Amino acid sequence: MADPTERSFSGPSEQIMRATYRALREHGYADLTVQRIADEYGKSTAAIHYHYDTKEELLAAFLDYLLEQFVASIREVETTDPEERLTVLLDTLLVEPEDNLDLLIAILEMRSQAPYKEAFRTRFEQNDEYIRYMLKAVINHGIDEGVFDDVDADHVARALMTIVDGARTRAVVLDETTALETARRTATEYADAMLR
Amino acid sequence: MADPTERSFSGPSEQIMRATYRALREHGYADLTVQRIADEYGKSTAAIHYHYDTKEELLAAFLDYLLEQFVASIREVETTDPEERLTVLLDTLLVEPEDNLDLLIAILEMRSQAPYKEAFRTRFEQNDEYIRYMLKAVINHGIDEGVFDDVDADHVARALMTIVDGARTRAVVLDETTALETARRTATEYADAMLR
Repeated sequence: MADPTERSFSGPSEQIMRATYRALREHGYADLTVQRIADEYGKSTAAIHYHYDTKEELLAAFLDYLLEQFVASIREVETTDPEERLTVLLDTLLVEPEDNLDLLIAILEMRSQAPYKEAFRTRFEQNDEYIRYMLKAVINHGIDEGVFDDVDADHVARALMTIVDGARTRAVVLDETTALETARRTATEYADAMLR
Repeated sequence: MADPTERSFSGPSEQIMRATYRALREHGYADLTVQRIADEYGKSTAAIHYHYDTKEELLAAFLDYLLEQFVASIREVETTDPEERLTVLLDTLLVEPEDNLDLLIAILEMRSQAPYKEAFRTRFEQNDEYIRYMLKAVINHGIDEGVFDDVDADHVARALMTIVDGARTRAVVLDETTALETARRTATEYADAMLR
């Protein structure tokens, strides 16, 4: 599995990713054009196509960028205590700022296209695998230290990601930001029941 | 809340719904046309427009139809034992036949359009509300009979639907039919932890 932090966005790439983020939140996925991203970037579409041949390639890179952002935010966490690290992971996955709903909407549109767009599906699979890897690592660490029960860490990680993905879908489809709070509570209840 | 079984599909309506089901599974949502539904129906597009003005109206009716099918399948269950009824509900929500993935794909596309299409969002909200109502009823029944702990039935129902929606999203995005099995196991683990 490739380490997502080996992909790096800096300089123009990072500026294009930030422009994509703003354009996606404003226009959604269906109405997104390279022109609209260029408008946010403040340069021509040619300046974008210099880095990314197609819109699909750019959006696939954007999914890499989102994972990189997530990993970076987790890296900043200094605690090595398994219980605290699990809490931080779940908080980061589920306690989204309310003004992030626009991004969740655009991402659900991209997720629904995964069966048709290989580049999207590959990214969603890689991102899921990487986050499950982080969850499994902290669960196994807790088992080794004797603070968690000896559970099937792979299953518990998949279960927690099911709760996370359910919350994100429900937040968009039902227009409920409380879906994330419900899922955060559910994730704690589930983890407590399984790990202790 | 309207009882979804009061909406009824019979005669031509039911035949159009069955045709829509086949067309959606074959072509997906983005490539669905009234012509393609008419082809499955074996009649002209005019015969469909006699019943439904627009494709969106037809698809909104299709979401009603799916709920009706679900409710009908639950009605057939004769047991009144709360534990057995909860098992049947979760089985029906999560143990989909494998060849149903095409329908899940089309529905996730429709779900991702809920923020843009009022008729879809209304249906998804109603369907979710009805299924949560059924889950709450069985949980409260179990509490009354003393077989379940005195939990917050509304929260547990929302938590279970979060697991269900997560599984459906993951089955489509990650092309994993095992997502439904993982979620079925997770739902049992969660219900056992909360209710007993």
